Amino acid sequence: MKQHSETLRIDTRRGLTSITEDVRRALGRSGVREGLLTLLIRHTSASLLIQENADPAVRQDLERFLSRIVPDGDPIFTHTAEGPDDMPSHVKAALTRTSESIPVHAGELVLGTWQGLYVWEHRDGHHRREVFAHVIGE
Amino acid sequence: MKQHSETLRIDTRRGLTSITEDVRRALGRSGVREGLLTLLIRHTSASLLIQENADPAVRQDLERFLSRIVPDGDPIFTHTAEGPDDMPSHVKAALTRTSESIPVHAGELVLGTWQGLYVWEHRDGHHRREVFAHVIGE
Amino acid sequence: MKQHSETLRIDTRRGLTSITEDVRRALGRSGVREGLLTLLIRHTSASLLIQENADPAVRQDLERFLSRIVPDGDPIFTHTAEGPDDMPSHVKAALTRTSESIPVHAGELVLGTWQGLYVWEHRDGHHRREVFAHVIGE
Repeated sequence: MKQHSETLRIDTRRGLTSITEDVRRALGRSGVREGLLTLLIRHTSASLLIQENADPAVRQDLERFLSRIVPDGDPIFTHTAEGPDDMPSHVKAALTRTSESIPVHAGELVLGTWQGLYVWEHRDGHHRREVFAHVIGE
Repeated sequence: MKQHSETLRIDTRRGLTSITEDVRRALGRSGVREGLLTLLIRHTSASLLIQENADPAVRQDLERFLSRIVPDGDPIFTHTAEGPDDMPSHVKAALTRTSESIPVHAGELVLGTWQGLYVWEHRDGHHRREVFAHVIGE
Repeated sequence: MKQHSETLRIDTRRGLTSITEDVRRALGRSGVREGLLTLLIRHTSASLLIQENADPAVRQDLERFLSRIVPDGDPIFTHTAEGPDDMPSHVKAALTRTSESIPVHAGELVLGTWQGLYVWEHRDGHHRREVFAHVIGE
């Protein structure tokens, strides 16, 4: 049984950025063929998501829907120091995922055909986000 | 330390389908008594949930509440190729879970007394869903 | 490769209660320096969250926002046996997390600088909640 870990650095803009290939390469470097890969995003204003990887309209609709139920500048928020997208970004991260665990079989992530791995950036502007990847197995 | 993995195939209809017994049987086949069991649903329009296993009204209320905040046919959605329940199912999966990790102690999942494991089907009609189960431990 | 597991008992009131130090101590007791720590909350009316650990206003805003979209006493709910905060607490748990997995590197949780671990209590009153912690690694 062995382990491998590394930090992936992902350049983001608001919305979903695919990290499937970054994660596949990390898995390849681990040499693990049967095991478990865990991702943790080290931020509270961006999150992880496993979602549809075919039609870009799905990602746009996800962003538009979530931004409608958690609107920028909602007057309910008191934590507004970093602007109108600050507190909504924490809520959106709370409603999606900070860690995901993906089993590994025959050297591959066992994602479904239509599943991709994404960082969901909830802040405006450009950011560089850290996703920690851990692999355990054989 | 050993590992076990298998694919569970679950027949679903819209709403929550219990998979607790399916997962317990997979754990039994693994022979692991102390360790970690991870589930990944290989779809983006159905999700995983750990929820109340006693009163069926809880599952019905969950379905009705989530379908009210993410309504079928919402005009905000542009990805509508597969019908009015298509894009809402992706949003609902984004708001619930794709993977869950459950520790194993004394040969049992460490779920609380009132917790059950569910696949939450977000599409209309009947579907067969794949849930990949991975167990590591001793 | 070794494993460690224990149950953390957390006293809560409605809102977010930090468990970061409790979890760090459990990790210390495990002796694991490189590995994976998994938490499972053994309840369906409280949940886990990794969120901002600096400004308390963030936690208050999270509670107020979630209680606005899932209001106590919403007439859509039929499961009301334990009061107006009963079914909303199940929905809020469904929308946040039951398990979280955090990699361990150099003897530390790989949380970001601004990340803390929380139990989110969704019921009124005082409660004692069980969080099961499992660690695997070396």
